[in-house]
Amino acid sequence: MDVVRTVGDLRARIGDWRGHGHGVGLVPTMGALHEGHLSLVRQSLAETNRTCVTLFVNPRQFGPGEDLSTYPRDEASDMEKVSKLGAHLLFAPTAEEMYPPGAATRVSVPGLGDELEGTHRPDFFTGVATVVAKLLLQALPDAAFFGEKDYQQLLVIRRMTADLDIPVTIRSGPTVREADGLALSSRNAYLTPGERAIAPALHRALIQVAEEVRAGGDPAAACKEATGRILEAGFQKVDYVEARDAATFKPIADASNPSRVLAAAWLGRARLIDNLAI
Amino acid sequence: MDVVRTVGDLRARIGDWRGHGHGVGLVPTMGALHEGHLSLVRQSLAETNRTCVTLFVNPRQFGPGEDLSTYPRDEASDMEKVSKLGAHLLFAPTAEEMYPPGAATRVSVPGLGDELEGTHRPDFFTGVATVVAKLLLQALPDAAFFGEKDYQQLLVIRRMTADLDIPVTIRSGPTVREADGLALSSRNAYLTPGERAIAPALHRALIQVAEEVRAGGDPAAACKEATGRILEAGFQKVDYVEARDAATFKPIADASNPSRVLAAAWLGRARLIDNLAI
Repeated sequence: MDVVRTVGDLRARIGDWRGHGHGVGLVPTMGALHEGHLSLVRQSLAETNRTCVTLFVNPRQFGPGEDLSTYPRDEASDMEKVSKLGAHLLFAPTAEEMYPPGAATRVSVPGLGDELEGTHRPDFFTGVATVVAKLLLQALPDAAFFGEKDYQQLLVIRRMTADLDIPVTIRSGPTVREADGLALSSRNAYLTPGERAIAPALHRALIQVAEEVRAGGDPAAACKEATGRILEAGFQKVDYVEARDAATFKPIADASNPSRVLAAAWLGRARLIDNLAI
Repeated sequence: MDVVRTVGDLRARIGDWRGHGHGVGLVPTMGALHEGHLSLVRQSLAETNRTCVTLFVNPRQFGPGEDLSTYPRDEASDMEKVSKLGAHLLFAPTAEEMYPPGAATRVSVPGLGDELEGTHRPDFFTGVATVVAKLLLQALPDAAFFGEKDYQQLLVIRRMTADLDIPVTIRSGPTVREADGLALSSRNAYLTPGERAIAPALHRALIQVAEEVRAGGDPAAACKEATGRILEAGFQKVDYVEARDAATFKPIADASNPSRVLAAAWLGRARLIDNLAI
């Protein structure tokens, strides 16, 4: 597997693949790779001829006071993992390569990007939409792969890609979980052993919401109960628990259309998010 | 010359050109074509093998109370003009094709996009950057052509294209003028005969600023005098007259670097803009 660090080298490599008629898959990541990322790499390898994994901790999607400086980084280990799977290229640019002096343009998704995560992390989705637009346009793959664990992010990226007519298919892969239900996340590394034991309560609370709503229960009431259960389990703060239409992201009154329940909560210094199909 | 109205048809046509190895030029316009637009079409025809002209009055770049509903439209005449020059394709989408229900994404260029025109037309450059990003990504031409008449717009488009890594070269063409110096503009159609006689005063005032600054005069003082002369000539209101660095768009203290003087002023119901190299 080759490693490139500039947009020019990335394009040369992908141009070479194109010249040989290969289809191209892109798997954007912030590194600290876990089985969730690796499942997307496998999906890309299965669906395309050539797979490029990107590794970039994007400063624009961290707000002031967030964990940019402490976000887990281990490029050597990441490189070994994706190389072992058979990925063909790793693109690991510097912040200067992605945002040269004078870079100013922002891509935002008002509405969808202002809710839930957007309420609690006001710069987050503009940072995500901007960097993903750049990565898609740098590589111009046939398909790019994102995890359902970040479900609202997936919708923001689908919306942005469609709205800007970026000629790339957005594909998604299911959330990968530990045996006890905790969704894999690079930020799980922040949990102490005691917090790690508490953490699966988030997933359990979402399962209960999904079951109650499927059984005809009121979504808002079920989410409120779930918030209580998450706090009782030992989380310090719940940012939200909400049931939303899976496509429009509007609040739901019942389970008549495909929908998701989504949550974010603080446990020690980790802010954990999770979501589930209802 | 063919006319297409959907992104799908546009891509099919351009894909066909690509299959034949042709280089592609794009000339985005809002129609009501004049010699300024046509000079860009000629430039594209000279520099590329296949030229697509786009014709779309973009509602997103008009603010509330601006002239969206009265903006001059004459598709039949536009079509004849570009066909006669030898352009190969006209892309004239509907607003629904460009902004289907749910379209939300915005591309903005903070800083550069907030000054001068951006101060007086707060939605303008976000509307321009968004529609131009879309057009470039719909067509993916080798080069796209824009007039220096809208100089700040040209800088915003260059910035946006570079920042988002859109793989298209932005080319520019000089302002085309009437014999008396008035810059060609679709909005000149709003001028009454009396106003038309007054209009060249804007260009004359800019010439005088350029001469004074070149001779060592203070740019701010020269711009202030120009404002007075534009009003004396019969314009009702001057939005700005400013001397800026041609690349960074920062205010200048002298003529040591390439710079431009830019102005916007109201004459009757027309808001005229113009600019000149110092």
